[in-house]
Amino acid sequence: MDSAPIVTLLSDFGSRDGYVGAMKGVILSLCRDAHIIDISHDLPACDVFAAALALQTAAASFPTATIHLAVVDPGVGGDRRPLLIEAAGATFVGPDNGLLSLAATAPRRIYHLDRPAYFADEISPTFHGRDVFAAIVGHLAAGLGCGQLATRCESMVDLEIPEPAVQAGVCMGEIIHVDRFGNLLSSLRREHLGGCDNSLLVEVAGRRIKGISLTYSEVAVGEMVALIGSSGHLEIAVNRGSAACELGIATSSDSRVPVSVSAAAL
Amino acid sequence: MDSAPIVTLLSDFGSRDGYVGAMKGVILSLCRDAHIIDISHDLPACDVFAAALALQTAAASFPTATIHLAVVDPGVGGDRRPLLIEAAGATFVGPDNGLLSLAATAPRRIYHLDRPAYFADEISPTFHGRDVFAAIVGHLAAGLGCGQLATRCESMVDLEIPEPAVQAGVCMGEIIHVDRFGNLLSSLRREHLGGCDNSLLVEVAGRRIKGISLTYSEVAVGEMVALIGSSGHLEIAVNRGSAACELGIATSSDSRVPVSVSAAAL
Amino acid sequence: MDSAPIVTLLSDFGSRDGYVGAMKGVILSLCRDAHIIDISHDLPACDVFAAALALQTAAASFPTATIHLAVVDPGVGGDRRPLLIEAAGATFVGPDNGLLSLAATAPRRIYHLDRPAYFADEISPTFHGRDVFAAIVGHLAAGLGCGQLATRCESMVDLEIPEPAVQAGVCMGEIIHVDRFGNLLSSLRREHLGGCDNSLLVEVAGRRIKGISLTYSEVAVGEMVALIGSSGHLEIAVNRGSAACELGIATSSDSRVPVSVSAAAL
Repeated sequence: MDSAPIVTLLSDFGSRDGYVGAMKGVILSLCRDAHIIDISHDLPACDVFAAALALQTAAASFPTATIHLAVVDPGVGGDRRPLLIEAAGATFVGPDNGLLSLAATAPRRIYHLDRPAYFADEISPTFHGRDVFAAIVGHLAAGLGCGQLATRCESMVDLEIPEPAVQAGVCMGEIIHVDRFGNLLSSLRREHLGGCDNSLLVEVAGRRIKGISLTYSEVAVGEMVALIGSSGHLEIAVNRGSAACELGIATSSDSRVPVSVSAAAL
Repeated sequence: MDSAPIVTLLSDFGSRDGYVGAMKGVILSLCRDAHIIDISHDLPACDVFAAALALQTAAASFPTATIHLAVVDPGVGGDRRPLLIEAAGATFVGPDNGLLSLAATAPRRIYHLDRPAYFADEISPTFHGRDVFAAIVGHLAAGLGCGQLATRCESMVDLEIPEPAVQAGVCMGEIIHVDRFGNLLSSLRREHLGGCDNSLLVEVAGRRIKGISLTYSEVAVGEMVALIGSSGHLEIAVNRGSAACELGIATSSDSRVPVSVSAAAL
Repeated sequence: MDSAPIVTLLSDFGSRDGYVGAMKGVILSLCRDAHIIDISHDLPACDVFAAALALQTAAASFPTATIHLAVVDPGVGGDRRPLLIEAAGATFVGPDNGLLSLAATAPRRIYHLDRPAYFADEISPTFHGRDVFAAIVGHLAAGLGCGQLATRCESMVDLEIPEPAVQAGVCMGEIIHVDRFGNLLSSLRREHLGGCDNSLLVEVAGRRIKGISLTYSEVAVGEMVALIGSSGHLEIAVNRGSAACELGIATSSDSRVPVSVSAAAL
């Protein structure tokens, strides 16, 4: 391919330090033409699940042969392995803590980054983003192969979006993400709900919403609406407002708010 | 032209989700060489006016043939039209809610994006940024013409910066924007003020500022200053501080704070 | 060199206005192929020291011939000079307020940007980032030489990381930066501490930490840890938490929190 290699970056490094810049510099030092594309760097600190979802959302749109570098790595320097994965026509580089697992779907080839010859000369135990991952990405962008940079391995940490439960005609899921608009993304997907129409009743945090709408603006400004969002998940939103604020919901992988969908009462 | 097409992105999608990345991926999937340039993605959610001003500020500096993609789109999925505009030597793509109107000044050619063949195969009613606008931008970057992608139309929603009123020698305007430094940008421009000098008195939120300065640092640290800002608007600022904090002003298109300029009292 | 010139951008302009975009547009108008790389734009407003540290952190990783544009410029329009510096294999452009001084280390050639022919036609006294610095960077990217764009000068404002004091076996420094994770970076570097091991006692804000660890995860989640961070400075952190929150520390160049390291008591 003649085009410059596309490299995406996602991290929780924020935008008030030099950490993101340091990773970019390392990549460009190894492949001056790398076409670096920022996904997001203000992911909540250390929230691997939120970052995995964001990577999944973004990576799905990129062309084949894109290299995705993702670093949300609270276990840096510990015993979590550094990984490289070939999957979905792309290459993913990051820590083995589940971060890559929603985007890098099976079938996939998993590699353990175990060859220090391709890392920085000196490796900070607290910044593998720069000294391990960005260095590997730079080598990939420069044309080195996965088999040269790393060793095949069998398994990796997989995050899972919790499977909905169905009981007595009620489909029960959880809020798995609050986006920047305060929209609440649930674990329920279109296929769980059967026909998405006005006969369904959504319940979350003591609030009932009747019917599944197509768009935010089907309800009045300030009103709550349930719809199937752009990633296929049932979403609760407020038209031009924040459902998260109105319902007092903040996400956390530890204690997720339940959401249920049932046939509407008469 | 041999150079890669320049594509700018502006949105209120923030930097903690995968939405911006998804748009970039779509563009690069259609034009791998697109030179993607971020303007801003942390525009206040759903604030079309603030985003229109930011786009105007930024777009003015770009070279001809730049493609500007802007998505602040609270009416997504409703009946607002998707637009493409040729104006000011550039191309603008986004919703018909006024967002493009301050940057894409007359003379301009307006097109309605009404040809789904150039959208994504499946269109989420809540994410036209990805499925409609980014797809169109990708095709533009790949060399397709406006006339091929869309249909000419006559009118679009235009935002307006409120015209100042002059009464009894007092020029009255409004605060139209608070920037990241807490500087207050007003609707008054240099040409409204006649000679900008020390004989003028600026009044805003009960505070009086004597004279129009050239720079922030003409007054002591922590003091308030009025000057003509970089976009030609009268601006109220605090040297190394925040005028917005000091005066307790937050902008909103709904209730704008008045500002007046008059000849200074003796 | 055939590759496009790499230009990095760092500022405190935030990501909700058009200011960063305006600078990018100016650069691309003068050099359409410039490979623009964002370092960070949400640096604390007007905090020159924090920005200088971030630039230092990032710039160290970039390849030779990179052009670094940095604008944190509270004195804009006043008598601080606009500078261009050749140092460390790179070129730095920005205000003479110390911002460039930590990254552009000696030996260096300093130039005063005193030739308006290379600035914008009209110069806003409040936005030299766009009208002076970005214009110069565009010309540099387009291949003009430093000697053509500016005039050699001898000195510049240098910031300094305060030197630690050693008294009675106690090494005393200061917290110089709080990063986005709430990690506290101190002025103490590895070389000040002699052997970094478990026999040392770190004290900050009334808290004592025994021993210098290698990684955050050497202590339990929520516990405080001292280690040598990725830039070589002694750092105080909380594993998966924020040391800044836990200790109630916010940085400020004016009143820095002391930190000391001594031999551990028996």
